[in-house]
Amino acid sequence: MSRARAEGGTTPLRVVGVIGAGVCGPEDEARAEEVGRRLAEAGCAVATGGLGGVMAAASRGAKSAGGLVIGILPGATAADRNPWVDVPIVTAMGDARNAILANSAEAFIAIAGGFGTLSEIAFALKRGKRVVSLGSWRPDPAVIAAETAAQAVLLVLAG
Amino acid sequence: MSRARAEGGTTPLRVVGVIGAGVCGPEDEARAEEVGRRLAEAGCAVATGGLGGVMAAASRGAKSAGGLVIGILPGATAADRNPWVDVPIVTAMGDARNAILANSAEAFIAIAGGFGTLSEIAFALKRGKRVVSLGSWRPDPAVIAAETAAQAVLLVLAG
Amino acid sequence: MSRARAEGGTTPLRVVGVIGAGVCGPEDEARAEEVGRRLAEAGCAVATGGLGGVMAAASRGAKSAGGLVIGILPGATAADRNPWVDVPIVTAMGDARNAILANSAEAFIAIAGGFGTLSEIAFALKRGKRVVSLGSWRPDPAVIAAETAAQAVLLVLAG
Amino acid sequence: MSRARAEGGTTPLRVVGVIGAGVCGPEDEARAEEVGRRLAEAGCAVATGGLGGVMAAASRGAKSAGGLVIGILPGATAADRNPWVDVPIVTAMGDARNAILANSAEAFIAIAGGFGTLSEIAFALKRGKRVVSLGSWRPDPAVIAAETAAQAVLLVLAG
Repeated sequence: MSRARAEGGTTPLRVVGVIGAGVCGPEDEARAEEVGRRLAEAGCAVATGGLGGVMAAASRGAKSAGGLVIGILPGATAADRNPWVDVPIVTAMGDARNAILANSAEAFIAIAGGFGTLSEIAFALKRGKRVVSLGSWRPDPAVIAAETAAQAVLLVLAG
Repeated sequence: MSRARAEGGTTPLRVVGVIGAGVCGPEDEARAEEVGRRLAEAGCAVATGGLGGVMAAASRGAKSAGGLVIGILPGATAADRNPWVDVPIVTAMGDARNAILANSAEAFIAIAGGFGTLSEIAFALKRGKRVVSLGSWRPDPAVIAAETAAQAVLLVLAG
Repeated sequence: MSRARAEGGTTPLRVVGVIGAGVCGPEDEARAEEVGRRLAEAGCAVATGGLGGVMAAASRGAKSAGGLVIGILPGATAADRNPWVDVPIVTAMGDARNAILANSAEAFIAIAGGFGTLSEIAFALKRGKRVVSLGSWRPDPAVIAAETAAQAVLLVLAG
Repeated sequence: MSRARAEGGTTPLRVVGVIGAGVCGPEDEARAEEVGRRLAEAGCAVATGGLGGVMAAASRGAKSAGGLVIGILPGATAADRNPWVDVPIVTAMGDARNAILANSAEAFIAIAGGFGTLSEIAFALKRGKRVVSLGSWRPDPAVIAAETAAQAVLLVLAG
């Protein structure tokens, strides 16, 4: 990458995915927002599925700390993005977009979530990527459990 | 559909997905072959990811009973299909093709399998479809456990 | 493939794609139906995007001659398939499914059509596959012009 | 969007796609670099397919003016991104990713290019988006011809 830097190439972003359901309660929302904020403070971009609930809260938290927010959307327009997404990627491929999110981030924090979140965890594990669960699925011991948002961010960045 | 039948329309196939890893031991192979055979005997088409292991054994079983075998392949050519696939669908989209398989079958039998199989189960559950596990993942009580291939086929068709 | 045949493997289908718009006039409909029928009479399966217009007419024609019809659908359910589709593949990925159709057939007949058909022709040409145009786009000399349905089928099978 | 701004929401990026082949001559490279630079100077993010040739030159140009560069990659890792991509989106879906690029930018400048570029133009036209051609395909009068990089940028932003 020295050639790249010599010619003004960019240092690749460190991208962490935050995954969870599109609707969530206040406790998970607070955790997601703190996770997003702490990731941005650590210099990471945050990638999510771009919608509401955990995705919106993590995005809002990341923006509050000046982070870059990538939203990999399932629908056919950017209109359903949450308002804290900087870079909307409009896949129009439904939840098959979960595979793209699994490919595009280096590690993941899962907060609560339903079957879509489970599919995302499975794809991340298949790619050998670190997954930290904050009250989410742990289908396999490879998923690392965290108790707090602060701990989840520490664990996800330790990889 | 009466218009369709009047003009020679086809009765839609009943398609069952058989999912599991691309490499498997002899016991799972035997179970997958029996599952494929029994599904074809029941008049179902069998859809798989089109590769080896559980996918190939289920395909071989289905062909042995004259069934139609659909292989939804991850790669960019049909060359890596197992030889019992009648209809190769060449997605070139890696394991994001698991979402297409989840969309395209009405119910699923999972045999053993790794994280790819887990992602498939998650997608199927998200779509509210029946999933029967024969020694595979059961991340949620919605997944129905079966002990034998015969039982798995009975359970998957009971939906 | 000799191992496959020895164990009851299937001879791969010869799959030809028929592409064109979801709404069309009676002349294009008649041509599409004849193309589908002639392809089935030649022993080919017909793959289309699974919807109406040219796709439905080609499917109906293929079924009238006992052919197998594959519909690679853009939506999230099989409900919008035309009634002559035997094997609905439910991609839920919109017109990105055109790439899957380009991968999954060996050659293509394009009948009239709009920008979606043009994208399909482009993908087919990119894969080095034969494209015959029956009153459709010819963005490149590699696309072979035909004047009649009969001629289109002869040309597409000559490859 | 006033709610978003009130809570620190982000103003959506204006994203323009620059499309063209992965290998190109020095003249097209110079044009692509100038296009990228001028788009960034106008405050736009630049989205490309993330690889070499026209894509790399446009990315380099955009970075030289401090722009944000999104690369929607066809492969399964970010390793083949050009070094000026800030945000690599790893689709692992081959050139079906062209549909995602067509969805994710508001307008497009096409520079030279082969059949992949043609598929991208077709998808953009299908979505009713503005396409400016700088020595690229013009399959339809809806594609606007430009003679210079400066003119192409003016025309693409006039929409």
